[in-house]
Amino acid sequence: MSDPPAEFELIARLSATLRHGRRTILGPGDDCAILARPRAAQLITIDSMVEGVHFKLGWGTAESLGARALTVNLSDIAAMGGVPTACVVNLAIRPGLGARFFDRLYAGLGGAADAAGVDIVGGNVTAAEALTITIALLGENGQRVLRRDTARPGDEIFVTGTVGDAALGWRILAGKLPARGVARKFLIDRYLNPVARVAAGQRLARINPPPAARKLAPAAIDLSDGLWQDLGHVLDRSGVGAEIEAEAIPLSPAYRAVQGDDRELALCGGEDYELLFCLRPGPSAAALTRRLGVPVHRIGRIVRGRGAILLGANAALTKAVARAGGWDQLRPRKS
Amino acid sequence: MSDPPAEFELIARLSATLRHGRRTILGPGDDCAILARPRAAQLITIDSMVEGVHFKLGWGTAESLGARALTVNLSDIAAMGGVPTACVVNLAIRPGLGARFFDRLYAGLGGAADAAGVDIVGGNVTAAEALTITIALLGENGQRVLRRDTARPGDEIFVTGTVGDAALGWRILAGKLPARGVARKFLIDRYLNPVARVAAGQRLARINPPPAARKLAPAAIDLSDGLWQDLGHVLDRSGVGAEIEAEAIPLSPAYRAVQGDDRELALCGGEDYELLFCLRPGPSAAALTRRLGVPVHRIGRIVRGRGAILLGANAALTKAVARAGGWDQLRPRKS
Repeated sequence: MSDPPAEFELIARLSATLRHGRRTILGPGDDCAILARPRAAQLITIDSMVEGVHFKLGWGTAESLGARALTVNLSDIAAMGGVPTACVVNLAIRPGLGARFFDRLYAGLGGAADAAGVDIVGGNVTAAEALTITIALLGENGQRVLRRDTARPGDEIFVTGTVGDAALGWRILAGKLPARGVARKFLIDRYLNPVARVAAGQRLARINPPPAARKLAPAAIDLSDGLWQDLGHVLDRSGVGAEIEAEAIPLSPAYRAVQGDDRELALCGGEDYELLFCLRPGPSAAALTRRLGVPVHRIGRIVRGRGAILLGANAALTKAVARAGGWDQLRPRKS
Repeated sequence: MSDPPAEFELIARLSATLRHGRRTILGPGDDCAILARPRAAQLITIDSMVEGVHFKLGWGTAESLGARALTVNLSDIAAMGGVPTACVVNLAIRPGLGARFFDRLYAGLGGAADAAGVDIVGGNVTAAEALTITIALLGENGQRVLRRDTARPGDEIFVTGTVGDAALGWRILAGKLPARGVARKFLIDRYLNPVARVAAGQRLARINPPPAARKLAPAAIDLSDGLWQDLGHVLDRSGVGAEIEAEAIPLSPAYRAVQGDDRELALCGGEDYELLFCLRPGPSAAALTRRLGVPVHRIGRIVRGRGAILLGANAALTKAVARAGGWDQLRPRKS
């Protein structure tokens, strides 16, 4: 067990890792960072990853951990159709982690920030019992913002990519699920190295609405808690209900290899960071796949009323969905 | 021990606590908050308070804890001469804290935000082993920004208020220092309920510079790590040295009652959240006191070279300053 590097050393290393773009007037090292006046309305989100709750160190590399801490925030910007711009990082460190670990963590974080065009403009380091990475991320959206409260009866519900993979990856890492070969590798990678659908979200925000939609952007949310639970957030905020077709939930070949036709984790497992969105009828899933640059599947439609109904589900799945609701990071899931 | 309230309940309670001003287009409840385009350059800072590291629950009320979590961030905006505008809150919660505790925490946080004109626009709740409140705060400054890197030889160094009080308050609470009556109450209050010098910082940024200062705003920093260490940040960033007069360090009557003439904690104790700033010679401390609306004392001057010299100190104090450097929240200080 090595002592953690001193606060100043960590801040200095973080600063050295970072490249600032033209929007950053003053980066780390002062009381605040200074950013040029944004060109549009600002988006802001904050998210945190706690050792023992959201991750275990032995499961992945420090680089992937650093990248993932930004990705979970990027996904929130993606779900608003925004352009991520700048972030600040709060690092709570514990004894036992040395300078090399933090260099690798920063390299992963810095690489993800570079790839997303995000400036890391400030940081704070504090002592704690568990390693915790908290990032507040800013973005911009000067046009149409994707919100949770704009779904309307008749909208068709789509989801990007496949769902349930990350939850399976987590179970494999936690030793709760046997899996081998390509499927094992794919599912673990989906958990450790999620990709935020930033470009797809921006393209979705630019889709021209039919006249009936009165310029409302599509309703959207990112899938962090699990499809069923996150859909519930959209329904609650929009004051509508939904019919979901169990058979239409998109599963990866790896998911099918491990779980067969059991869709419980596809519906209730979290941390896939795909987008779920609701559109006035018109574009097909194939057209949206081309338009957004990611695979898109239609999974159901918005109806009048409240709550979601799962069509074509057997009794076990219906019960599981009703019971689980979704992924709850406050529920203990130590392995 | 009561179970912590569920994540959604906590978010809902937080949302209900909050009032949003006209700058907030969309508050909590979506993937991101949306803020109107700022009128000026943006300031951003992040800070965190960890149970067992920065506070103990038994020491103060939940209200004061909530308020303090915002104040430590407000102080960073104050040190840039900025106007605080909006924040997002990340709450890591542990078992054993009930709904009433969080209602009181939010009430303190909400009251502090109201008083400072800050919108609380988003939040995130996660499980953890220790209660941790992390806040990212935005501000604006369209004019002259107070930075750490603009001190120049010949500048006079001033500090607002008195220093060392919070460090004594912490020692009293930790049972490391006996104190009674009014002094005890005052010092503990200075630790538990610090006040950020936001208005003073804004006024300082508007002080007209002599022609020689070439429109540079005064260099400034807030005192969170301790006067000696925070002064060091200004000196490092500005590439200058300083002479500090030990006798000029402003002490409160309570500090004198408990510590007499020993200035070690006034120089090295942290968390006072006063401002230290450097001005071209001209305004007297009395004039600055009137101008900024807070007590101001002159404590020394910026010189060529590197590092700080303490004038008029006895051997013990000189040694203590050299040894301690300042307040380090990474140094264990469990009581």
